[in-house]
This record gives sequence, structure tokens and C-alpha cells, in this order.
Amino acid sequence: MNTVQLVIEFLGTFAFAISGIRWAASKNFDWFGGYVVGLATAIGGGTIRDVMLGVTPFWMTNSIYLICTAVALLTVIVFKRLIVRFTNTWFLFDTLGLALFTVAGLQKTLYAGFPFWVAIIMGCITGAAGGVIRDVLINEVPLIFRKEIYAMACILGGVAYYLCLLCGLNVEITAIVGFSVVVIVRLAAVRMHISLPHLHDDENI
Amino acid sequence: MNTVQLVIEFLGTFAFAISGIRWAASKNFDWFGGYVVGLATAIGGGTIRDVMLGVTPFWMTNSIYLICTAVALLTVIVFKRLIVRFTNTWFLFDTLGLALFTVAGLQKTLYAGFPFWVAIIMGCITGAAGGVIRDVLINEVPLIFRKEIYAMACILGGVAYYLCLLCGLNVEITAIVGFSVVVIVRLAAVRMHISLPHLHDDENI
Amino acid sequence: MNTVQLVIEFLGTFAFAISGIRWAASKNFDWFGGYVVGLATAIGGGTIRDVMLGVTPFWMTNSIYLICTAVALLTVIVFKRLIVRFTNTWFLFDTLGLALFTVAGLQKTLYAGFPFWVAIIMGCITGAAGGVIRDVLINEVPLIFRKEIYAMACILGGVAYYLCLLCGLNVEITAIVGFSVVVIVRLAAVRMHISLPHLHDDENI
Repeated sequence: MNTVQLVIEFLGTFAFAISGIRWAASKNFDWFGGYVVGLATAIGGGTIRDVMLGVTPFWMTNSIYLICTAVALLTVIVFKRLIVRFTNTWFLFDTLGLALFTVAGLQKTLYAGFPFWVAIIMGCITGAAGGVIRDVLINEVPLIFRKEIYAMACILGGVAYYLCLLCGLNVEITAIVGFSVVVIVRLAAVRMHISLPHLHDDENI
Repeated sequence: MNTVQLVIEFLGTFAFAISGIRWAASKNFDWFGGYVVGLATAIGGGTIRDVMLGVTPFWMTNSIYLICTAVALLTVIVFKRLIVRFTNTWFLFDTLGLALFTVAGLQKTLYAGFPFWVAIIMGCITGAAGGVIRDVLINEVPLIFRKEIYAMACILGGVAYYLCLLCGLNVEITAIVGFSVVVIVRLAAVRMHISLPHLHDDENI
Repeated sequence: MNTVQLVIEFLGTFAFAISGIRWAASKNFDWFGGYVVGLATAIGGGTIRDVMLGVTPFWMTNSIYLICTAVALLTVIVFKRLIVRFTNTWFLFDTLGLALFTVAGLQKTLYAGFPFWVAIIMGCITGAAGGVIRDVLINEVPLIFRKEIYAMACILGGVAYYLCLLCGLNVEITAIVGFSVVVIVRLAAVRMHISLPHLHDDENI
């Protein structure tokens, strides 16, 4: 399990960083700007979670996240064309990363002794808040507030995780179920163009 | 006192959430986006305060804030037209919430052992920072930097609170005075169209 | 050393605050908005650092930073014309502040027991993150992601600091070398129009 988890974490971090760097490129940021946006996308959610939980941000204990983002930056600079062609691969990595980050957020929050509804929110923040920080840094309206099922997949995964624990399933299986629900919901939503209803203005302000 | 405080806190949280959700609606966010913006408006200020004070964010110990925001979201979705008609009511709730959050911020900061000038700033952050986060999330220039007396009411309330304590008044009366000053300053400023002077450009950059 | 350090810290804080207030003025913020943006520019980086290190934000232990920002606001309001004329002076103060904040960030992080690569990042955050917060608050794309060598100067200063410590130089000399590298890199980059390569779009999204 542990090796699989590490591989997924690396792929997820990589995909998140690639996403941030590509958005930075669309705004013609320089290399440093690309690196910072990529890093913020990859580690932003987990950092907010850790600050709220009152523990040291996870990336300060292991330099792999910084290295992974540097590799992502190099990849974008050197293999521009190739990256565009592999859009489906990035989407898959991104989805795996989203699911793994969500489960990691759930586990860490429960381990710190918080109740379940806090853990579900922290799972969602771990998975989805990095993308919000990315969008704030490139001065765009956050994508996840307007498009697709993204953060909702994290929440449903968190609920599934909760139900498994309630049913007395062991930790490993619970993690796999939570992970799978996030992946399946996200893939199904994109494939079937499912999205949440939108709020409407109606001179609402 | 305690029941009154709880009622005001609920009304204030509700009014703050409504404000965030209506702004999200003006940007055509989906339901999830509306919920997040509403929640950030309602709990953002107190969360920043708690992180800086080094304590667990208040909303992680009581699910009422999440529930209150969910009720606000439902209200906006179901009673769109009604909400527009009750603008004055929201304004009143919002002002009460602002005052209560300010006093809560003052009390919590002093209780944690910080000096008074820190408490005044934390009172202001508790009351006004949620609105700044809201505006950052919907990608607008923060309203409170440009319009009306809003955060200044928190600061004046904080100063009044300080003076009361200096004069040896008891905690209850001090809280009521601080609360009242915020409400009165805010209402008076809006009614009499008082605002702070603006900075001007003059090729200033 | 200590007096020199205090003077530089005051000048740096002052220059950072002036920069934030002038940007706020370009957006016609009111005095309160100007003060908040100035303050966020001056103390934002160090605050993020301290929250991540798990210590009380530095400005909560000494009111000098708030006073310094108030003086900066008064200066902008009263001496508008003069400020424009002294652009080179602000640039110099800003550079000195950047260097001092970077070294302070390095020292505080190492003192807290974190490894060197964390310290280098924290030095960079201490020096450069205030400007990013400023740009988010005025709703602009962060300047340091697009223009000039700014944050890179902090990173090179951090590396120089590391090498000095590795070579066994004493703390004072190490600090002076780190400080000087930041100043020299920044001045040289601006004078010789050196900037990092930019990322390009190429239908990259």
C-alpha cells in the first residue's frame, strides 16, 4: 500500500503543479511566477489544512514537494507541445491526486481528534483549495465555483469514508473506498457533463 | 445575556452568509461556490484571528456555522424575490453581526493575554476580514477599502471598549458599550453618508 | 549592529508600507483601505512565515509596525508630490528592507530548528509575500510573477547565507553576506534590466 500511495502522491503533486504552471504560462508569468503558482496549487490545500489543525505544514518536513514542482516546471518549459497532447493523462493524474489528497486530509484530521464533519471539510480543502489559491494568484474567478463537479467529489468521498468507518470496516478498506468514490464521481461527472445548479442574479444584489 | 448573544450570533452569521451567497449569485457561481463564498464571508474573519492567536478556529468546535450557512444558501435559492425585498433587514442583521463579532474578537484576544492594540485589530479583523475574503474570491476589489464606514466602526467600538475597561466598568457593560458604538457608528455613517477621505492618484505610482 | 538593524527595519517597513499605500491610491481607496494595504504589504510576508512556523506573528509583540505604517499613510497624504520625486529613495529603502526581511526570515526559521531549504523559502516569503498580498488586495496580477528579479534575489541571498554557514563563518558575517547578496542582485538586475525568461502560452491550456 505504502509504495502505491507514494507513487500516487507524486503523480498527484506533479499533476497539480503542472496545472498551476500551465495557467501561469497562459498569463505569461516568468519562471519564478510559474514555480510559485505551481507550488501553491500543489501544496496550498494541505498547508491551509495543517495551519488550521495547528500542525507544521506537511511540505516543511519533506523536500519532495518542492523537487516535484521543479520537475513539473522543467517539463512544461522543455516539453511544451507534448504536454498539450497528454491532456487526458494530466486529467487522470489530477483526479488520482484529488482523491489521494482528500483521503490524506480525512485521515490527518481524524487522527488529530476532530469530529467527522470537520474531517470532511478538511478533506475537501486538502483536495480543492490549492486550485482556488492558484486562481486567486492569476487573478481569475476560482474555476471550481463555476464549473464541473470537483470539490463535491471530495465531499462525497468523505461521506463514503465516514459510512465505511461507521460500518466497522478496517482503515485500509475505508481509505480505498473513499479514494474510489472521489475518482468515480469526478470521472462520471466529467464524462456525463453533470454539474451543480447555478445561482442566478435576478437583481439579487 | 447568553441567549441574546447566541441569537445575535446566529443572525449575524446568517446575514454575513447571505451577503456572500448573493455576491456569488451575481457572478453566477454554482451552489457549491455560493456555499463556500457564504461560509468564507461568515467565518473568514474569525478564522484568521484564531490562526494568528494560535488557537483552533472557532467553527471547528461547533457545526452551527456550517448549518447556518446551509440554511442561508437554501433561503437564497428558494426565496430569491423575498430576499431582495428585505434589504433593510439584512443590513440590520449584518450590522448586529459586525458589532457582535467585533466584541467577540476583542474578548478572545484579551483573554489570550495580548495587549489592547492587538485586541482592537483582532476585533476589526473578526468583523471585517470575512468581507475582504469574499471580495477576493469573487475577484473584485474589496468593498470596505472604498466605500462607507465599516471597519472604522469596529475600531471605534474597540476604542470604546478599551476606555470602559480603563474606567473600571464591569465586563458586561463594557461589552454592551463596545457593541453599541459599532452599531451606532455604522448606522449613523450610512444614514448620513459619512465616509473617509479617499487617496488620489496624481501619477502617484 | 542592533541599532543599524533597527534603522534598516524601520526604513524597510516604511518603504513597503509606502509602496502598498501608493498602489491603494492608484485604485482610489479611502484612507482605511490605504492603511490596510500598506500594512499588509509591510507585515504580510512575516505573518505568513510566523503562522507556518507556529509562532505568534511578529507584529503582535511590538506596535512599531502599526505606527510606522500610520506615519507612511500620513506621509503619502501630506507630501504627495514629494513622494513622487523621491522614487529612487523608495527603491533603495525597499531593497534594504527586502534584504533585511530575508535575513530575518532565514534566522528565525533556522532558530526554530527547520532545515536549510525551509529557511531559504521562508526568507523569500518574508521578503516577497507582502507584495503578493498587496497585489491580491488591489485585484491585480502579482507583479513579482511577471517583472524583474525580486524574489530570486531573496533566494540567492539565502543560498549565500547557507554557503557562509557551511564554511563556518560566524553569524554576524553570514548575515552581512546574505544581506549584501540580496541588495547587490536586486540593484544589478534592475540596472542591467535582467529578468527571468517567461513562460509562453502556445495554446497551453
